[in-house]
Amino acid sequence: MPPAPVIPASAGIHATRMTEFTLIDRIRRRVHAARPDIVLGIGDDAALLRVPPGQLLVVTMDTLNAGVHFPGGTAPADIGWKALAVNLSDLAAMGATPAWCTLSLSLPDADATWLDGFLDGFLEIAGLHDVALVGGDTTRGPLAIGVTAHGFIEEGRALRRDGARVGDDVWVSGTLGDAAAGLVFRDDAALRARLDRPTPRIALGRALSGLASAAIDVSDGLLADLGHVCAASGVGATVDIAALPASAALRGACAADDEARRCFQATGGDDYELCFAVPPDRAASVLAVSREAAVPVTRVGTIEAGDAVVARDADGRAWHPAATGYVHFSRPAATSPD
Amino acid sequence: MPPAPVIPASAGIHATRMTEFTLIDRIRRRVHAARPDIVLGIGDDAALLRVPPGQLLVVTMDTLNAGVHFPGGTAPADIGWKALAVNLSDLAAMGATPAWCTLSLSLPDADATWLDGFLDGFLEIAGLHDVALVGGDTTRGPLAIGVTAHGFIEEGRALRRDGARVGDDVWVSGTLGDAAAGLVFRDDAALRARLDRPTPRIALGRALSGLASAAIDVSDGLLADLGHVCAASGVGATVDIAALPASAALRGACAADDEARRCFQATGGDDYELCFAVPPDRAASVLAVSREAAVPVTRVGTIEAGDAVVARDADGRAWHPAATGYVHFSRPAATSPD
Repeated sequence: MPPAPVIPASAGIHATRMTEFTLIDRIRRRVHAARPDIVLGIGDDAALLRVPPGQLLVVTMDTLNAGVHFPGGTAPADIGWKALAVNLSDLAAMGATPAWCTLSLSLPDADATWLDGFLDGFLEIAGLHDVALVGGDTTRGPLAIGVTAHGFIEEGRALRRDGARVGDDVWVSGTLGDAAAGLVFRDDAALRARLDRPTPRIALGRALSGLASAAIDVSDGLLADLGHVCAASGVGATVDIAALPASAALRGACAADDEARRCFQATGGDDYELCFAVPPDRAASVLAVSREAAVPVTRVGTIEAGDAVVARDADGRAWHPAATGYVHFSRPAATSPD
Repeated sequence: MPPAPVIPASAGIHATRMTEFTLIDRIRRRVHAARPDIVLGIGDDAALLRVPPGQLLVVTMDTLNAGVHFPGGTAPADIGWKALAVNLSDLAAMGATPAWCTLSLSLPDADATWLDGFLDGFLEIAGLHDVALVGGDTTRGPLAIGVTAHGFIEEGRALRRDGARVGDDVWVSGTLGDAAAGLVFRDDAALRARLDRPTPRIALGRALSGLASAAIDVSDGLLADLGHVCAASGVGATVDIAALPASAALRGACAADDEARRCFQATGGDDYELCFAVPPDRAASVLAVSREAAVPVTRVGTIEAGDAVVARDADGRAWHPAATGYVHFSRPAATSPD
């Protein structure tokens, strides 16, 4: 019998699959799943994970598409950071503690340099929050990054959208409008950093669990996202436009034009700050958790009866971005995932 | 004060987001999450889910890209079916019981007719396996469908890739090669049905849990997928090419050419049958669970020492698809996710 032409046990048959296996190997080599709740991570048909007794599983899934969710020319490391950050922000908005994620990466070709850069950013923010990459796939296709993030929260403590009550104060974390302004003022490093490397407010979200009556992360713009909370809760809200927090960078970039700044703050997406409703008698507790989490918070409005979100100027007049002439700033080519 | 120009609480600011909300509403209206383990489904920042005490969470994520994972012209309902089926197949290959899924849908435009067709197929197979859609997102972009599927399994009972032992028999479920042949014989309804509407072997996988020493689903082709099991287990395998099960449809389509048929069976992807290793003294139990699950199984090879998967003809000669001239059949334009 002639020597057998063997198929190596580690090799695929299809050339396109070879590429996928190479990419997956490259990812696997850089992932060290050290969490004790991972029974089986990358490399099988599925991951095996242990949810702590008494905790609910919290699951969110968001995809970023090239040219839609990030501008062309965005650094691979920033894309990697953002792809996970927007999902962690959803967990933060529930008050959850992140644990694991899966990654589905569609790439036009197997570009190792791009992948390494992407992993730099992805694994950096994963490490900051002790999130382990436990599975997923790589496919050939237009550049797109899908992430599913998993976390935990005790039953009954999740921050839902449907808990806002008439009389609650409306608060936001950090500053608003920077990310959207970063799409316009692309050379402003501070604004671009807010767009490219958003900070999920994990610690603040956790601390607000059991304190806030409702929460959402600001991905579509404050007025739109507060609208989602109001719709889910069956209430309305008034927002004090003059109270919206602005960064020094945004004030600088919009020094000549207050209305442009307000448009960015009220309607700009992608900030990934938390917007949350809290009964007014808990304001001191909100300020205390803000100090503890080292994230500033600002009271920007009130939950009211009705079904509309009304923005008002300092003199009490209704304010609408469509009337300002700067609404095009709030409709960037890149939009945000939830 | 003039009447306030209000922003409806349920509306987004960006036109592109309006589209997303409309799509999500359309999905939400058709989803009735009736599982008692869902605390909160579609509509918040994340889903809240209850994993049964003592069970491990099993998670898998696979994306289908248009033109890569399904041919152009595939019916939306078939795309919807397949997007969930390939993920449920991964759960089957772990021996898990499916529970929930999330869906990330990238669409070039908001085509309600396409979405309705897609949901027909997606929700049909979801209903068959009591899988609830609990979240996800819709984005603008090239057509792509990302799914994350979640299931449960008791600790210690998962079918992993790394448990195959020298001396184990190698078995496969159902028949092999139909899906790859469906890419070539596109007018053969039986073969196309196998390609477009694969059957995840959930009941068989569950029954093999605690019986098989290793398992994988056949997505890349039998030899390649058995190669993954061998690589993970540190073993090799011999496959009896003549023993591979063929459907009547495949036999008919390849009536004039046995070698083409063998190529499809040994290397064709996308069948989503299970390939599993079992100690030989458990063969009777394998046949019993096969009858119980109403899925035929066939013994096709043996786990051996070494690190190679060797295919052999009935006369014992090594067989290699590259030598047959039909290898182009096994490299279809559409390749399979894991």
